[in-house]
Amino acid sequence: MRMTLAPPPTPFVAVEVPVLERNIAARARSIGELGIETRPHAKTHKSSRIARMQLDAGARGITVATIGEAEAFVAGGVDDVFIAYPLWVDPDRGTRLRALAERAEVRIGVESIESAARAAEELRGTGVRVLVEVDSGHHRTGVAASDAGRIARAAADAGLPAIGVFTFPGHSYSPDGRRTAAEQEAAALAEAAASLRGSDIEPLVVSGGSTPSADFAAAGTLTELRPGVYVFGDAQQWELGTYAREQIALTVHATVVSRRADRIVVDAGSKILGADRAAYSTGFGRLLDLPDARITSLSEHHAVVELDGSPAPSLGATVRVVPNHVCSAVNLVDSFVAFDGGRAELWPVDARGRNS
Amino acid sequence: MRMTLAPPPTPFVAVEVPVLERNIAARARSIGELGIETRPHAKTHKSSRIARMQLDAGARGITVATIGEAEAFVAGGVDDVFIAYPLWVDPDRGTRLRALAERAEVRIGVESIESAARAAEELRGTGVRVLVEVDSGHHRTGVAASDAGRIARAAADAGLPAIGVFTFPGHSYSPDGRRTAAEQEAAALAEAAASLRGSDIEPLVVSGGSTPSADFAAAGTLTELRPGVYVFGDAQQWELGTYAREQIALTVHATVVSRRADRIVVDAGSKILGADRAAYSTGFGRLLDLPDARITSLSEHHAVVELDGSPAPSLGATVRVVPNHVCSAVNLVDSFVAFDGGRAELWPVDARGRNS
Repeated sequence: MRMTLAPPPTPFVAVEVPVLERNIAARARSIGELGIETRPHAKTHKSSRIARMQLDAGARGITVATIGEAEAFVAGGVDDVFIAYPLWVDPDRGTRLRALAERAEVRIGVESIESAARAAEELRGTGVRVLVEVDSGHHRTGVAASDAGRIARAAADAGLPAIGVFTFPGHSYSPDGRRTAAEQEAAALAEAAASLRGSDIEPLVVSGGSTPSADFAAAGTLTELRPGVYVFGDAQQWELGTYAREQIALTVHATVVSRRADRIVVDAGSKILGADRAAYSTGFGRLLDLPDARITSLSEHHAVVELDGSPAPSLGATVRVVPNHVCSAVNLVDSFVAFDGGRAELWPVDARGRNS
Repeated sequence: MRMTLAPPPTPFVAVEVPVLERNIAARARSIGELGIETRPHAKTHKSSRIARMQLDAGARGITVATIGEAEAFVAGGVDDVFIAYPLWVDPDRGTRLRALAERAEVRIGVESIESAARAAEELRGTGVRVLVEVDSGHHRTGVAASDAGRIARAAADAGLPAIGVFTFPGHSYSPDGRRTAAEQEAAALAEAAASLRGSDIEPLVVSGGSTPSADFAAAGTLTELRPGVYVFGDAQQWELGTYAREQIALTVHATVVSRRADRIVVDAGSKILGADRAAYSTGFGRLLDLPDARITSLSEHHAVVELDGSPAPSLGATVRVVPNHVCSAVNLVDSFVAFDGGRAELWPVDARGRNS
């Protein structure tokens, strides 16, 4: 799979390796300076090769969202995975997790007494450990911080070692909300850790983190951070103010197939960019080299780009599109084209589509 | 790949074969009664097996969006494909289209004199024929109807047989816009066909169609219709009023991983449902068996479902989620689980990810 190659037909996903390397190093440094461990969320890149780069930069292990992702990364050589998800461990999932636990250190999330009991039924004695998920303001999954000790106690009593708490401060995805979300995250995790201690369980791991909130993490409460998108950046991070244009490491190369005076249409649509559009987004994606332009509508294979005064690229020209949400774009392709100086290689997206 | 199998771990894409068969037969009949040919858009299912079902029901050929999809379907046995897209035929695409034209009847779209000239450079003498794309109100790609003759003439003069016109009435994706879009489509195509005649080119093919507008197609102007989504239906069609609940053939089976009194969270997120949300959508998807419930927020592996009074399914229960836009969901998986009575088989999604 490693070779120097001519660019494939558009649209394709391109990674600028020097920018990727800088992003990984910068975040490892900034988190390390706080005395916090990094456990990057690998759902963003789904690539064993990039996970290796993160581990080489000092990450303790990786975070994933599904058992299938864990299987792909363990097969790719990773030996420490946290499935940061409130799994319902039915017998089939139990079998898969037991197999994983023979090859790697495995942690999973729980967020109810019932799911902890179910997981314990399958996993007691296997070395799999659990963290209790806490809601710090995103209101997706997770229990109230004050309830964390009760869940951890139930897991422990059922025979499953409970070693800490975690949260995802997803409400940090808001232009004005990054600092507040980080503060709420720290407060909720501190309360949850105290709740564990109140149930005679030592919170060895106190885990938080998202890319937009990571800049506001403080030493003290957290023991680990799980940013994901930071490796690549995307139009959401650009518009949230987390990343500048020159820090964006991943784009979709696309061809101009239609051209008018004030707009172009390119051949990258939702089937390679993803269809994510947050409330604060100014469009369905951006052009890296025409920062004033906006993708104003998106079909499966068309992006309509309003140029807003920028000169229109020629018919047949290649443009670099920045997806709104890079995790979605990566999950749509089997490989990246990794550019490093004059060299181009294909890097497989090992864990693409591993939803279960 | 064909076998009876136990359901795989959730989330997975499930197709109810009897419903699929009824949808294919009903649309073939309704379009056939108008004296119009059906050339279904295969981007929806990306499955050679379902394309074969459509051809067996009388379809003339299939429609695709990319050369890669055409390659996958021709490899799967289809011998007549229309790439309904204004391709920019660079030398690499020229090579691929020439190879395709040796194995199948191939038509492509053009929408400018430049793209017609570029295509002619690569394709003259190969049997590949072109249709001029016309804008009938969706304002994506396509020329004004009155301009169609000029583009067709340029293609013909450059050595590329021009045989007709096509449009996509995408503005039919609006609860009140279906009939109007169909009327505008017919008017634009009639004007475009007249424009070809004015340039001494016979419009042998006058092609339109979308699933929401197909119910309003009339005999007279169109020679073919290209609906895609009709095979499966989805939450968009349900909410547009095109399809009733019992006509929906595809769902994502998902597990309840979190449960409160008024809401549940299931393990199907945007990485299997897609993130599409039209302006008229009431959420990010629906539950087939709880029609009052709505997916009010969607992450990559979580759908938050507000129950609105429906009883909450148990933790660990399986629910059937109807994606908003089925074409996006299908493109996220390598296979469907096809249920037919007591039997389950895996059907490959041959053309998944063929974006280029």
